[in-house]
Formats: sequence, C-alpha cells, structure tokens
Amino acid sequence: MKSYWIWNYGDYEIFHTNMVNSRRQEQGIDYPPMWRLYDVDRNVVFLCNETLPEDGTIKLHLNGQGRLVVDGTMYGPGKSVPVKKGEHRFEIHVMNFKGLPAAYIESDVFATDARWYTLDEKADKRTVGFNEKYTYPQDNPETFRFSYQTIYPQKTEKMAGGVLYDFGKELFGFLHVDSVGQEDNIHVSYGESREEALDVDYTIIREDITGKTSYKLRQRAFRYIFLTGADTPSLWAELEYQKLENMASFRCDNEDINKIWDMCAYTLQLNMREVITEAVKRDRWLWGGDAYQAFKFIKYLCSDQDTVRRSLIGLRGKEPFCEHINRITDYTLFWVIGVLEYYQTYADLDFIRAIYPRAVSLMDFCAGREDEKGFIIGKYKDWVFIDWSDIDKTGAVCAEQMLYIAANRAMYDLSELVGADGDKYKKKAEKLLVDVEKYFWCEEKCAFIDSFQSGSQHVTRHANIFAIMYDIATETQRDSIVKNVLQNDDITKITTPYFEGYELDVMGKIGDVDYIYDMLISYWKGMLDLGATTVWEEYNPAVSGSAHYAMYGGRYLKSLCHAWGASPIYLLGRYFLGVVETEPGYSAFEVRPQLGKFKYIDGTVPVRDGKVSVYLSEKELCVTSTVSGGTLVWNGVNYILEKEKPVTISLSPSCH
Amino acid sequence: MKSYWIWNYGDYEIFHTNMVNSRRQEQGIDYPPMWRLYDVDRNVVFLCNETLPEDGTIKLHLNGQGRLVVDGTMYGPGKSVPVKKGEHRFEIHVMNFKGLPAAYIESDVFATDARWYTLDEKADKRTVGFNEKYTYPQDNPETFRFSYQTIYPQKTEKMAGGVLYDFGKELFGFLHVDSVGQEDNIHVSYGESREEALDVDYTIIREDITGKTSYKLRQRAFRYIFLTGADTPSLWAELEYQKLENMASFRCDNEDINKIWDMCAYTLQLNMREVITEAVKRDRWLWGGDAYQAFKFIKYLCSDQDTVRRSLIGLRGKEPFCEHINRITDYTLFWVIGVLEYYQTYADLDFIRAIYPRAVSLMDFCAGREDEKGFIIGKYKDWVFIDWSDIDKTGAVCAEQMLYIAANRAMYDLSELVGADGDKYKKKAEKLLVDVEKYFWCEEKCAFIDSFQSGSQHVTRHANIFAIMYDIATETQRDSIVKNVLQNDDITKITTPYFEGYELDVMGKIGDVDYIYDMLISYWKGMLDLGATTVWEEYNPAVSGSAHYAMYGGRYLKSLCHAWGASPIYLLGRYFLGVVETEPGYSAFEVRPQLGKFKYIDGTVPVRDGKVSVYLSEKELCVTSTVSGGTLVWNGVNYILEKEKPVTISLSPSCH
Repeated sequence: MKSYWIWNYGDYEIFHTNMVNSRRQEQGIDYPPMWRLYDVDRNVVFLCNETLPEDGTIKLHLNGQGRLVVDGTMYGPGKSVPVKKGEHRFEIHVMNFKGLPAAYIESDVFATDARWYTLDEKADKRTVGFNEKYTYPQDNPETFRFSYQTIYPQKTEKMAGGVLYDFGKELFGFLHVDSVGQEDNIHVSYGESREEALDVDYTIIREDITGKTSYKLRQRAFRYIFLTGADTPSLWAELEYQKLENMASFRCDNEDINKIWDMCAYTLQLNMREVITEAVKRDRWLWGGDAYQAFKFIKYLCSDQDTVRRSLIGLRGKEPFCEHINRITDYTLFWVIGVLEYYQTYADLDFIRAIYPRAVSLMDFCAGREDEKGFIIGKYKDWVFIDWSDIDKTGAVCAEQMLYIAANRAMYDLSELVGADGDKYKKKAEKLLVDVEKYFWCEEKCAFIDSFQSGSQHVTRHANIFAIMYDIATETQRDSIVKNVLQNDDITKITTPYFEGYELDVMGKIGDVDYIYDMLISYWKGMLDLGATTVWEEYNPAVSGSAHYAMYGGRYLKSLCHAWGASPIYLLGRYFLGVVETEPGYSAFEVRPQLGKFKYIDGTVPVRDGKVSVYLSEKELCVTSTVSGGTLVWNGVNYILEKEKPVTISLSPSCH
Repeated sequence: MKSYWIWNYGDYEIFHTNMVNSRRQEQGIDYPPMWRLYDVDRNVVFLCNETLPEDGTIKLHLNGQGRLVVDGTMYGPGKSVPVKKGEHRFEIHVMNFKGLPAAYIESDVFATDARWYTLDEKADKRTVGFNEKYTYPQDNPETFRFSYQTIYPQKTEKMAGGVLYDFGKELFGFLHVDSVGQEDNIHVSYGESREEALDVDYTIIREDITGKTSYKLRQRAFRYIFLTGADTPSLWAELEYQKLENMASFRCDNEDINKIWDMCAYTLQLNMREVITEAVKRDRWLWGGDAYQAFKFIKYLCSDQDTVRRSLIGLRGKEPFCEHINRITDYTLFWVIGVLEYYQTYADLDFIRAIYPRAVSLMDFCAGREDEKGFIIGKYKDWVFIDWSDIDKTGAVCAEQMLYIAANRAMYDLSELVGADGDKYKKKAEKLLVDVEKYFWCEEKCAFIDSFQSGSQHVTRHANIFAIMYDIATETQRDSIVKNVLQNDDITKITTPYFEGYELDVMGKIGDVDYIYDMLISYWKGMLDLGATTVWEEYNPAVSGSAHYAMYGGRYLKSLCHAWGASPIYLLGRYFLGVVETEPGYSAFEVRPQLGKFKYIDGTVPVRDGKVSVYLSEKELCVTSTVSGGTLVWNGVNYILEKEKPVTISLSPSCH
C-alpha cells in the first residue's frame, strides 16, 4: 500500500529550516545566525485506530529509536509483524536527538498517512506531517529532494597566477574540481562578480583544498571561480535547484523588460530551496520580510504553495516564542499578514488550523512589546528594521504601527477562519488606527511622519507606502501621500529592491502603472546594464564600478542574487496581466489587463492547478483560462472565462 | 591558564538527562519515555568583555560549528589568534544540531570560565554553565565522566543448555563476553534474579550476538547472566559508577540493620548517575517523585550537591512547560518543594536565581490545572499518581492538595530568596489550607479523606502522612492522624518503599523512632532475607517465590534496584544520629542523637565539606564535627561543637 514517512506536524519544516540557516560561511568560517533556532520535538508518539480489511503483515521503519505497539504488544523496527483483520490500536514511539523523528509502515494492509495523529498538550488530536517526497521505506525525510544539472564554464582565462572561470551566470550548487595533483595546494576563490573572484584577500566565499585528485565542494553560489595552485584543473558545476511546475511567463515588446522578467524568475528560483533563502552566496538564511515579499512573487511565478508553507512554518519556529522572527519586529508582523495572504492564495484551511495557536502566541509576544500608548516598540534585543534607509526610529515608529494594524486585522480574519474569538485583535486594530492618525499624521507635512516622539517630523516613504498598501490611509490621506510623498523627489528615494517592491505595489494599487514601467526601465535595467544575471540586494545608480558590490562594510558583502528584488514578476502579473483572486484559493478570480506603455504583453499567470493566459495589444485582447472561476473585466464589462475557452476582444476595427 | 568548557546554563544537564532517558530497552526493543523531552538551545552566543593583562594568543575549540569574534573581527576555531593586552570584546557563536553546543578557549592570557555570559530573552546577563569535569581542550562535555571497576562472576553453573553466571550482587555496567567463536549464535539473558536470567522467554533485558570473538555489550544492570550458544565463554563485567566523596557511615549492634544500611547505600550509589535514575535494570529514567526522595537520602549519604542539581535541572527541562514532570501531577509539585530543600541543604543561591523563572512558569502551569474551587486536579493527559495504592482519585485528590500547599509555600520562600514578589503563592497556600480543612477533613473518620467528591470518605495513609510531613495538620489533627490512621491496622498498609519512606519520615518527626526500628526489621530485612543485594521497587511480605519479581503485568518487570527504597540512610542519619541543618547549607546545624532500641549507634553524616561523627550507647555519647557551626543538643542542654573537638558525655557512672 502507498505509505508515507510521517513526523510531528511542522517538524520537517523546522528541521530543514535549521539546516538552511546553519550553512552560512564567510572566509571559510562557520557563521551561525544571530537569532534563536527552534528545534523539532525529540520524542514523538504517533497514534492510529484502524480496522484492517484483511490479515496482513506490517513492518516498521524508523528515523530514530523506538517501537511499534499493536493492541498493547510491542515490536521493534525492521521486523515483519503479522496482524489480523479487524480493529486495532496502533502506536509508534520514536525518539531522535540528532535528527528528525519519523516513522514509516510498510504493509500490504495498512500505511502511515493522514489517518495517524499525535496528541497536543491538551490531548487534542493533531494530524501528522507527511509529503509526497517520502513514500518509500528507503526515503530519508532529512534529505531534501532537489534536481541537478551539469554546467560547464563558458569562458576560461589564465591570469594573475591562476585560472578564472566564468560560468556565464550566477549558479547555486556543487563545484567539482577534477584533474588536479594530490600534492597541489589549491585555493578556490568564488565570485558573484569577476572582481570578487580575483580579489582573493576579500572574496567572501573561498576554500583551500589539498590531498586529493578531485573534489566535490559544498553547495555555494557563484558565477566566477578563480583557482590557483593547480596546472590544468578541470572545473564543472552541479546546479542544485527545485524543479518548479506550472511556471508563469511574460513577453512584451520591450526586450529589456523581457530580460528583467527572466532575470527575476531565475533569481527567485535560485532562492526557492527547502525554504525561501536570501542571498544564495552569503547568508542563505530564511528572513521574514524578504520571504513575505517573495511569497507574492512566487504566487505569480509558479504558485508553489509548498515552498511558501515550509517557509512560514520555518519562520515561526516553535514555542516559546521569545524573540521576534530574525529578531526583527517588522518581520514578526509580516508573518501574520503573510499567513492570511497564504490562505487567500491557496485556501489551505488545514494549515491555518494547525498554525493558529502559534499565531496567537506570536501576537501575545507582540502585546508584551507595546509601550504605554499601545504602540509596538523595540525592546530588549529587538531590531526595528523596516528598510536600509534614514528612518527616524525614535520611540514608536510609524511604519511598525502600520504593520501592527495589518497584523491585528489579519489575526482577526484568521480567528474567524478557525472559529476562534478574534474580537480583541479587531478592537486592537481599531484603536491603533485612531492613535496612528492622532500621533503620526502630520497636517503640516500632509503625510505620516516616522516618529512623533523625536519632534523632528521626519517623513520617509515607508510608513506612507504601508498606509496605502494596507488600506490604513483615508482617501484624502492617500491622495495627499501620492502627491506629497510618492511623487515628491525631495523625499529620500528607496534604494533597496525590497522596498521598491512595496512602493511599486502601491503604485499599481493606485493605478499608476506607468510609474512601474518607468521604474523597470530606470532601476532594474540599470542592474541589467551592469551585467547582472540575477537581481541585487541593493542598487544605487549613483555609484560606479566595483563600488556596486560593497555593503555592510565589506567590498563584496552585497548579495548579487537576492529574491527580494524579483517584484517585477509580481507587478507584471498583478497589474499588467491583471490576474487577481477574489475568493480564497482563486476559486473566483478576475483578470483586469492593463497595457500601460507597452505595445503588447503576452503572458501567463498560475491559478490553482492551472493558468490564465493573457494577450493584450492595442488591437486585441485574448484571455484563456485552463480552470473555471475567472472573470475578465474589460472596460467595465464582465466576461465569464469558461475553462479552456478563449475570450477574444477585438480592440480596433482593423483587427481580425 | 585554567579554562573550562562552557555552555548555555543548564543545557549540559538537559543533554545528559536526555541521554539517560533515551537508553531504556525491553526485550531488545528501544523504549522511549512517555513524556516530552526538552532539548538544549541549538544556537548560543557567549559574551565577555575583558581587559587582558598582557599580549598573548587564544585558540577557540568548539563542540559544534561557529566562530570567535574579537572586537568585531572573526576567527575560526582551531587557530591561534594573537591578542594584545588591554580591553577587548569577545564573542563566541556556536551552533550544534546534534549535540551540546559548547566552547573552550585555550590561551596563556585568557580563559572560558565564569566571566562569560549569555543574554536571556530580556537581554539580561546569564552566567554560562561549566564544571570541573571539563577543563582541557580534549575534554568532551557530551561524555559524562564515570569510574570503572572490573568484576568477575563469583559462581558459574552449566545448566539448561547454557551457563549461568552469578556476579554476587547487582551491578550496573558493561558485560564483556570473551573467548567465543565468530560463528556462535549467542543469546545473553540478563537477570536481577536467578529466576529471571533463566526464564529466557520472559527476561526483560536480553541480546542476541554473533559474528565476533569478543563483545563489550552496552551498559545494563544485572546480577545473573544466562548465556547459551557458546562453548567456553569467558565473562566479566565493567562496573560503571560515580565515585562519591565524603561518604556517610553507620554501624550499630544489629547486624541486619548494618546490612540494610550498606544495601541502601549501594542501591543509591548505583542509581546516582548523570542524574538520579530509578530501576537501573528497567527504565533508568529520571522520575520526579523518586528523585525528590533520593535527594534526602543523598543528603545523608554523601551530600552530593552536583547530582541533585543536575537532576533538578533535568527534571524541569525548558520552556514551554506544557506537561507535568513525567506527566505526573505530584512529581511537578515535589520539584518545587525539592528546589527549596536543595537550597536549605546546599545554600546555593546562584542556582535558585538561575532556576527561579522556570519555577514560576511551572507554577503558572499548575494554576491552569485548577478546578473551580482552586484545587489542583488531573487534566488532559495528567497522571495523578501519589503511590501504587487504592487511593480514591475522584475529582480533587487530597494528597495532591497537600503537595500543592507545600509547593506554594516553597515558592513563596524561593521568591523571597531571589527578591521577587511571592505574595500570590503565600495567599494561595493560605486559601488552600482553609479549603483542604473544609473539604477533606472528616470529623467522622478523624482523618483527611482522599476525595470529597466521591462521597465515599475513603481514608488512606497518604494524604495524612503529607499533612504531618508538610506541617499542614493542626496539632489536634496530627494526634488524631497518628492514632486513627498511622497506628490503625485497618487502614491499608503502604507496600512501596517509596511511600514507606514518607511514612517513616513522619514517624521520625513525631518522635516514634521505635516504629522506624521495627519497620527496618520487618520490612527491609524481609528483602534481605530473600537474598536482595539492592532495595526493591516494591515488597509485599504476603507473596512468595518468584511472585516477588512480578509487577506491571510482567513476570520480571519489578525493579530489584530502586533508589526510592534507600530511606534507611536518611532515617538513621536524620532521626538516630540526629544531624539536621538549622540554617541553609548547614552553616548552623544541630545534632540530637536518639538511641531508641539500639544498644549503640556509631556513624557519620556529611555536613558541608566535612562530616559529623556520632557515637551513642547507653553509656556514652561522643560527637565530633570536622566543621564548625554545630550544636549538640542532649537532654535539653546545648553543647557547641567546635571544629575537630570531640564532645563526650558520659551517660553512666561506670563509663570512661
């Protein structure tokens, strides 16, 4: 019978998140994250009452130590146990201090699957965790299943006492070094840029190897390799990646934007691993804010629910929740909002039910971070981040309160979904709304100010962007913000693709798609022109040369492959192709295409297990959906999108 | 410089508790505990600001992955790093998903020791954990340091197709099987009793081995080994034990009681391992109630503060505290009382400060287990144990309320010690006292009844024993309990040495030392007469033959080496030799010897880092203390015990 490896719900994700978060190295030195890492439950009991249809045998496989108990009699793993037809009580006890406790039953009459449960601290039943990757006894849930592809260098140059290899674009995977001498003392210098690979004293990722004639080095990100100490080495790379299904597409008349879309899709894919990582070269950690944005991009790239759910579980960790996600206040709040957006996208109520108690304790934790006015503030080791920008962070910070309102609203909705009483979240959001208005809205500046406690009335885009994004600003405030902040060049520009994503989302929301188009050309194309094959962590058009690679006080500490810069995927799918769900899980959705400055756009957006294709030019609109539930909205008219039936609208008499 | 391996405070104890709790096997099958196992923090940052007196080098050693950061510059482990004299900021980051994250600095000018700290969730400094066992770079804090002794069988018998080996007394350690053939299919059957070893289908501990010519089998408890499948095997055992210092002694005119004392001391020593274990043969788990009693025995055997503290930390585990210790309500409550008694014995305020937050969350958890009257009851998976006896456990159980009063009183005292507000615990204890009186005291029975909700007015000794033990009963109630319960043969007798220990403690407390003497003769001597070399888990004089070994529905599931039966150590030291602390840590103590039915008693009791010797016969009393602070109280007269100065009192003219 088909059977699954089962584990304590969520612990597979916690386990792999820990593995991801533990792999950072810099200059050959291990670099643990600066936040708490939660761990799997070490001692798990799986239970199942089942009536077997006929006699058979069952054999237990464990990842850990333990036993099978059938009707009170115990058996060790690895032995075939005869079982009679009829009703039985099954228990599996498994304990593992070094890995993920998991169990698998091999049987002709029974299986480990969704029928099994654990008991929580109130003795309530909780469904076990399992997935389609682990359905055979020999499968190991501690090993994440990736796909692999061999890639050879495109260019090789002898120089500076070594050899420089260019793989043509940023990769993530294993570097193989062959055909070297056992006595060779080889230095391998990895570079996202040519400059980095060659600047051997400052390269972030490097390794000295000797003693063998060939090597498979650990997974790392690179485009360039500079190698010294061997005569005629032979190098190749083994790209490691998740195969993504149901991929979106985008083509238009502007070749640069086509390249940007491809670059963004590739950047995102490289970072979609066990969980969403940021900076495949550098930290490869799971960051809450970065992931929150990536969820939106994933939704429009491939609708990969599993990677999003794994990331949400990994970010939240377990109990006790005693510090912010990544120690960053905003990232904790994004998590709650992200859980609701996950539900809106995938309609996965089972997950909401499972994660809800952890959302409650997270919000309790936030409540303990409030000041006397009820604003959330940074306490103890909390990092009030928002963005790399000159935000006035004195006392309660406006942008955090915007998120706190959105998080409380999301928590109210989540409570409704699971049938819990979420009234306190609703009231909290309402009170915060009044207080934010009172303390942070500045009539003089016609905008929300960063801090009311400093007295400086400093305005940045950030809080104002959130005010529109999360429907906090009134209509009047919104118009004022657009004019006095977003369209005001005196207000410091955004320099991270991260926040640029939020800004452009708001621009899309207020209908200014030309602003998005222009920014793609001016900002993303800037990186493209500098030879980027993946999107950077930060891009400042004002600097030049290898200064582009510097950050955090290091010559090459900037990541040149950062998922948070992939917003064009989302922006083009959401605001130009115009596909958006109107019911959770896209059971109903609308398509509202906009051409903007394009001559034509031609793309697809994933919807449930299918996709919507949109072609729009000045002459024609053609929309097809492979799934039902869609409505094309064009010029105020609704067109029902029947499954697989194209709706074509001729836009000029000359067409057709 | 002398340096220590350092770890997150308490995690060494958690780690080793997990190792202990994970080693149970039955019939060759791994048997995980039925309770939650807490785990170490996986990602730890150690901090230290220090002014170095001169230039030097430091080298980091890690158990895990990580880095050293000196004034913001990072270094990997295993490399000598030069450091200049003067002030520095040191950080060690270490992460370990499979073991105990720990660090060690090897240096001529610096060290890892009590100067280092971690930051808790409120960014308050917490001293790191370390101990004298791990002071060299090559030490491994994951390996507990034991002593070893080779022991050969005392008797060998060929029988039943195999060979039976008798090691003369119960052991715990490695069995070595030598001089066997590689092809031999050997069955090894372990027995605490001869019957168990020979009853191969029912032996609890057994192993089949083949393929080698000699074996070192995993640590187990046994006295007898029955081996089949080899011609001329050679067996020996490697006893594994903790070397105990400052051991007590006891001798008297009754040779049986001398043997009982020795048997108890040996039983206790076999169970004093990484933490206190119960049943070295069977579960070897750390049990809260068993440990609580063992703490009292240890106090009078060797005053081994470290084993007690390790056990207290291991029992409590970490946050969130979401189920009772061992899932047993009473064991959780004993823990709090045990922490206070630990303080009274060892005056270790550092530990109290460190553990106090965990005591608070444990009491919060208990508050969530109250019924509408405020009594603690069993909820969800809670096990209301008290004792293996016919206690009426309907609704709120009286014995649990007695412990709950004592726990709240202890919590109040602990709060005072750390300067926290413990008022609510005091009030809770007062309210409980009133309610227990109101609901559980039965004027008709002149005793506390088990349950008021059942209406059966059932009386057992248990609640009444606790009422006296924890000063809950009024003087009148106390007298009534003694007469109507303790001295009433119609009230079901205690059958476990565990609760017998509590009963006798109360008998000692009310001054009835003859009762203790008689029970030693009738109860403990009963086991001795049946050939016991260690104290049993349960002893029922009414049964005979191998029925003594049966328990829990298994022929040999009873433990024949159970620390909870070692109360004679405590009773003889406490009530006959009469040594008791009157100030925390024995900074002041009294000696009030009682001869009872003995002709003479001659023993020592550990006191701080010294001991008190007491000799008392009908003719003479002689008391010597190796430490100051003591007062001999004899016939209402106080004699100051000066260090090393014997106080001798002639009790009859013929003496001297």
